[in-house]
Amino acid sequence: MNFNIEEHPHKRYNPLNGDWILVSPHRAKRPWQGQVEKQASQERPKYDPGCYLCPGNERAGGHKNPDYKGTFVFTNDFSALLTDTPPGEINDGELFQAKSESGICKVICFSEDHSLTIPEMEVENIRNVVDLWCLQFEELGSNPQINYVQIFENKGAIMGCSNPHPHGQIWSSEGIPVEPEKESRAQKTYFEKHGRTLLNDYLQTELVKETRVLEQNDSFVALVPFWAVWPFETMIVSKRPVQNILQLKDKERTDLADIYKKLTIMYDNLFETSFAYSAGLHQAPTDGKDYPEWHLHMHFYPPLLRSATVKKFMVGYEMLATPQRDITPEQAAQRLRDLPKIHYKK
Amino acid sequence: MNFNIEEHPHKRYNPLNGDWILVSPHRAKRPWQGQVEKQASQERPKYDPGCYLCPGNERAGGHKNPDYKGTFVFTNDFSALLTDTPPGEINDGELFQAKSESGICKVICFSEDHSLTIPEMEVENIRNVVDLWCLQFEELGSNPQINYVQIFENKGAIMGCSNPHPHGQIWSSEGIPVEPEKESRAQKTYFEKHGRTLLNDYLQTELVKETRVLEQNDSFVALVPFWAVWPFETMIVSKRPVQNILQLKDKERTDLADIYKKLTIMYDNLFETSFAYSAGLHQAPTDGKDYPEWHLHMHFYPPLLRSATVKKFMVGYEMLATPQRDITPEQAAQRLRDLPKIHYKK
Ligand SMILES: O=P(O)(O)O[C@H]1O[C@H](CO)[C@@H](O)[C@H](O)[C@H]1O
Ligand SMILES: O=P(O)(O)O[C@H]1O[C@H](CO)[C@@H](O)[C@H](O)[C@H]1O
Repeated sequence: MNFNIEEHPHKRYNPLNGDWILVSPHRAKRPWQGQVEKQASQERPKYDPGCYLCPGNERAGGHKNPDYKGTFVFTNDFSALLTDTPPGEINDGELFQAKSESGICKVICFSEDHSLTIPEMEVENIRNVVDLWCLQFEELGSNPQINYVQIFENKGAIMGCSNPHPHGQIWSSEGIPVEPEKESRAQKTYFEKHGRTLLNDYLQTELVKETRVLEQNDSFVALVPFWAVWPFETMIVSKRPVQNILQLKDKERTDLADIYKKLTIMYDNLFETSFAYSAGLHQAPTDGKDYPEWHLHMHFYPPLLRSATVKKFMVGYEMLATPQRDITPEQAAQRLRDLPKIHYKK
Repeated sequence: MNFNIEEHPHKRYNPLNGDWILVSPHRAKRPWQGQVEKQASQERPKYDPGCYLCPGNERAGGHKNPDYKGTFVFTNDFSALLTDTPPGEINDGELFQAKSESGICKVICFSEDHSLTIPEMEVENIRNVVDLWCLQFEELGSNPQINYVQIFENKGAIMGCSNPHPHGQIWSSEGIPVEPEKESRAQKTYFEKHGRTLLNDYLQTELVKETRVLEQNDSFVALVPFWAVWPFETMIVSKRPVQNILQLKDKERTDLADIYKKLTIMYDNLFETSFAYSAGLHQAPTDGKDYPEWHLHMHFYPPLLRSATVKKFMVGYEMLATPQRDITPEQAAQRLRDLPKIHYKK
């Protein structure tokens, strides 16, 4: 019997952050008697008087939203990072180390329409979100106190999202966070060795292999990475190696909006539900240094596994030992690729 | 204004695995409008005819449990790792690397009584669980194909536990998993530099500082680590630097059972609910090499944050950037320490 990656338990290496994951292809048949999630409610009004993100409504702390159309950005009323944190350090021997951290946290409403989500928005309106990301990346990134800008979206109550109004967040910080730091190191090592970005070479190979590619347009590819951890984890990678969204040309910005919509339509269609995920852009730090090794990409980490109500739990073995998945990345790609391209609600 | 670790956002370093975490003390006041978990059901019968772990009942695949009393161990009917996996490797350039992985997965019932949990069991019965861990560690660890033995417990539906019958698991593998590997490296570096284990020195300092210590007996200390990520994350550390549970003396085994019970009573009392967590032992690999740097400990990763129904979500920023917590480890320790020592149901 020969080792077969589609059939036998194995580990895969993530060259982007240096970790390994465990794949147990045979385990997909396991029955489930555990927790069943509440299904995301299917219909929401266009305006909800109780929503603190809808136009004209009051937020925590007495702020009132303007009567906005399209996108709207404001500083998070409960920011995890603040601008006025005094610098300082605890260095109580090598086992007790702490450093003060400052930054700016923002909330971005994607649309005034409470009922929408990215897959249901028009590409031109998602393009407005991309434009706002660019403006914010420029403004925050040029602040000498900000060295990393993390743009992300938590979608769905099961992903800790406390409000269904279509929105994302930006947490920007003085320090470079853990994950981008790991990816920075791996990309640098690769670039110094090959003179090309890691994700450029990865993408070229995937485009030839095709098994994990989901969708592409002129500027971006959506795929299931070879080292995906979450059941339907995906990545959007720019075809041209750019370090951040400011380097995208006009057409490329629209193409990013286009593939964001296409990928999330697949997601919604998979279980015919509004598909929960955390997604976010990874880009070069904004500390003024040059990062030719950095290649812009967007990660999608969705928890659902079997249906609209049964998710994968990253617990126990995953927390203490190694992240584990049941279906293979190739099977996940196949299932997503085979879905209709039109949103199931239409 | 001086930097104050109890007040200002900061990063802390985890010397055991080399990662940083973000602490936002001021953020604990944030209101919560997000997902509310189902409360763990309070009462269960001593025997449930539908439970596949109760004595005499049938499991998946037609196996029938014996009429056991106390503990009972069997091979997981849906093992993520198998013994007959053919060895092999994929090495399709540095970006596509995979290795076959083999191992043995077991399930351990803690008691025949379906209604119990660790904090409600008698110490002498938890001691039987510790003895079974030892037997299993010895048997699996002496198998030349097994180089790491991961003993763990997922408790509660919100931690992906699919059956409330008191039980834990053991996943043992040929390869050394990601987390123990990181801890191995850090402990080795420290030991080579100081000639003492990292956790020995850490423990000595914590016992003097006292602010993060929760409970101790002759052989073990329960504390909130300085670098805790989850709101009420804790660790049990052996006072004597031992590499694995087989090196524990008779009295130490009972003391481990004792502190396991005491800690989980605190947990249950915190929100007067059966407190969900993933917990597991970290020990030296079983590959036949010597690991003087390894220091036995047990991690507890519980998700609840504000109440029996509101948990912390590790999503978005946590997945893409840096794990983040709201209350400080010191505040968490204070709250746990101040609780009554008797289980709230008594
Ligand atoms: O083995 P169980 O209890 O069915 O499954 C649970 O524990 C496993 C090991 O931590 C996880 O991989 C699963 O996601 C979780 O649901
Ligand atoms: O900021 P929100 O949406 O209130 O909160 C959510 O996103 C944050 C950033 O990913 C997480 O730290 C929180 O645990 C989560 O509930």
